[in-house]
Amino acid sequence: MLNFTFHNPTKIVFGRDTIDRAGTETAVFGKRVLLLSGMGSAKRSGVYDRVLVSLRAAGLDCLEIDGVQPNPLLSKVHSTIDAAKAYGADVIVAVGGGSVLDSAKAIAAGAVVEHDVWDFFIRRATVARALPIVAVLTLAATGSEMNGGSVITHDETREKFNMGSPHTYPKVSILDPSVTFSVDAANSAYGAVDAAVHMLEPYFNGANPDAPLQDGLVESLLRTIRGVIPTILEKPDDYQARAVMMWCATYALNGMTSAGMGGAAFPVHMIGHALSALYDTPHAASLAIVLPGWLRVVRDEKAKKIAQLGRAVFGVTETDDTAAVDATITSIVAWLRSINTPASLAEGGILAQDIPRIAANARRLAALWSMEKYDEDYIARILSQCI
Amino acid sequence: MLNFTFHNPTKIVFGRDTIDRAGTETAVFGKRVLLLSGMGSAKRSGVYDRVLVSLRAAGLDCLEIDGVQPNPLLSKVHSTIDAAKAYGADVIVAVGGGSVLDSAKAIAAGAVVEHDVWDFFIRRATVARALPIVAVLTLAATGSEMNGGSVITHDETREKFNMGSPHTYPKVSILDPSVTFSVDAANSAYGAVDAAVHMLEPYFNGANPDAPLQDGLVESLLRTIRGVIPTILEKPDDYQARAVMMWCATYALNGMTSAGMGGAAFPVHMIGHALSALYDTPHAASLAIVLPGWLRVVRDEKAKKIAQLGRAVFGVTETDDTAAVDATITSIVAWLRSINTPASLAEGGILAQDIPRIAANARRLAALWSMEKYDEDYIARILSQCI
Repeated sequence: MLNFTFHNPTKIVFGRDTIDRAGTETAVFGKRVLLLSGMGSAKRSGVYDRVLVSLRAAGLDCLEIDGVQPNPLLSKVHSTIDAAKAYGADVIVAVGGGSVLDSAKAIAAGAVVEHDVWDFFIRRATVARALPIVAVLTLAATGSEMNGGSVITHDETREKFNMGSPHTYPKVSILDPSVTFSVDAANSAYGAVDAAVHMLEPYFNGANPDAPLQDGLVESLLRTIRGVIPTILEKPDDYQARAVMMWCATYALNGMTSAGMGGAAFPVHMIGHALSALYDTPHAASLAIVLPGWLRVVRDEKAKKIAQLGRAVFGVTETDDTAAVDATITSIVAWLRSINTPASLAEGGILAQDIPRIAANARRLAALWSMEKYDEDYIARILSQCI
Repeated sequence: MLNFTFHNPTKIVFGRDTIDRAGTETAVFGKRVLLLSGMGSAKRSGVYDRVLVSLRAAGLDCLEIDGVQPNPLLSKVHSTIDAAKAYGADVIVAVGGGSVLDSAKAIAAGAVVEHDVWDFFIRRATVARALPIVAVLTLAATGSEMNGGSVITHDETREKFNMGSPHTYPKVSILDPSVTFSVDAANSAYGAVDAAVHMLEPYFNGANPDAPLQDGLVESLLRTIRGVIPTILEKPDDYQARAVMMWCATYALNGMTSAGMGGAAFPVHMIGHALSALYDTPHAASLAIVLPGWLRVVRDEKAKKIAQLGRAVFGVTETDDTAAVDATITSIVAWLRSINTPASLAEGGILAQDIPRIAANARRLAALWSMEKYDEDYIARILSQCI
């Protein structure tokens, strides 16, 4: 176990009808609310209106800004920072999934400085403070509701970069599983993949080689996700399954399963980000496309752990490690296909001839993340195995 | 999954040599430190001196108070509150295990009010604020380092009662596994039992009957604890095993494994507290004594869950539930004995003729905890099965 600091001060308010508490939870932080939302699904489902009613009942003023896209753009963050400054926002209420929450974090950090918020993403500046954020989550997937991370895409350079800070953890996150009943099958499956890969990257790449505690937690949560996702796809309004999935997704990236693993590389995310930035591929779809190829390339170097995963989570019974690795990769691909996520470049509509361009984009992030091994050739080799 | 609020703001600083950061972590909260410790083990191991050096290097003034006993007494809390007030303490640094940490929480809450601190324990008053606490943990067991709970024994009435508050979570807890190398075999085993029972009570008594996520986490942590404790007993300075045990014990009572389970009853703790209050039985020993008897009494009503535990954690292979329940209880008793903890009243040196007196004491706590079913007869029935 490696040395670590764990400090996750986000307050989670979880359960049925908790969205009606948005007003009282927010009022603690001020009177002027920047109310941020996405492309309209929260408005169509009625969640947004319930939050608005709750905020107004608590006597709060709201500046409403919608239109945050999946793979959220820096230009939208910029314009909303300007609006937040002009309005004099005390607090941001973010109603949405990972894109809205990630945008809220960038806006919260950018609204209290004079320089370009992108400086935080290219490591030219460090977040020293931020507006408080109250999140109302509408999608179980990214874990953004209980961490300080934010991923934003630069409109022109098409860099999909991240930042993280203790100051951008949501103060409060409201998780009402019934809000996710209206999430369609594709996005429900993407949520499961997103949560799974958040845990698998530290599982495979953590600097701590002997991690029975963390491995056990990850394997347990992965089994749980595999167990509930068929119910969700079959019966989208199954409260229990939606609730389990929602809390699993939060645990998957709140630091709990990775504390003590050391600073793990996130190669699947790194390459996936390039796909999303260039093709606007949904985030989790990009992970599902890259994961099998990455596993095929690292299969020898990580044979023991891949076999362990297969046995613990995917019902692999092969006793020989090489056979178990084969069976595990096959099982993972079969699982991805069973929930209708793409598991190859072709299934994601991405042309093999674009591999050099994708590799060049991913390499810029690899440099930022100090992943020296991941030069353009190595990334291209992984992409060529995403078949 | 039941509705819940999860908010655990304690900052954990985990790892080798982290105790030397006590000074810088404490200085944030003020200049005048009440430095609390126990019966001398931290002084003998050198941990206390390293903390003191660190505090002084950070320019802090210290009022040193030692002598907190296992099953800590209200009288000591009272006298230390008086000392803290007279000194004008800004912050409490608690160096020790659960007893010192629990005392620190009571002192932190009592030092800022004029009424008797016991009022918090008998629900006559609610904690509204408290002095900040920095904990330097010397024992992996109680989980007190990452929750707001405190258990104190009243000297005269021999009531071992608890209180809990969001205000008494340690601000920072420093967990250096190497500090626990000097913990003897008995207390190391007690730590494992304590952590296990902290998870088992919500596992068995949570209001949520269908909890794959929480069950999976608990079973995983229990397997991990069972896996490392033989190494700890054999090789007390095995850093990896001590580190895994330390972090497991924290997770066991930081709310993570029980969130969504509903307010669970803690009957084994309730009866165990009576043993500790009357006989000064070590806390975890009292749990090890009561758990088998409690399981024998509830075996029919909780057959499915007992069998599930046995299969998931104790290698029980019986497919028939009744046989699996028998095998599970037998396995748990065998496990307790294998790590040399008492698993019956007799092994704990407690006379069967005292059962009515123990039951009467436990009943007072059952009333406070609104556990109506646990009248004196029912408690006595459980105790009579602790054989």
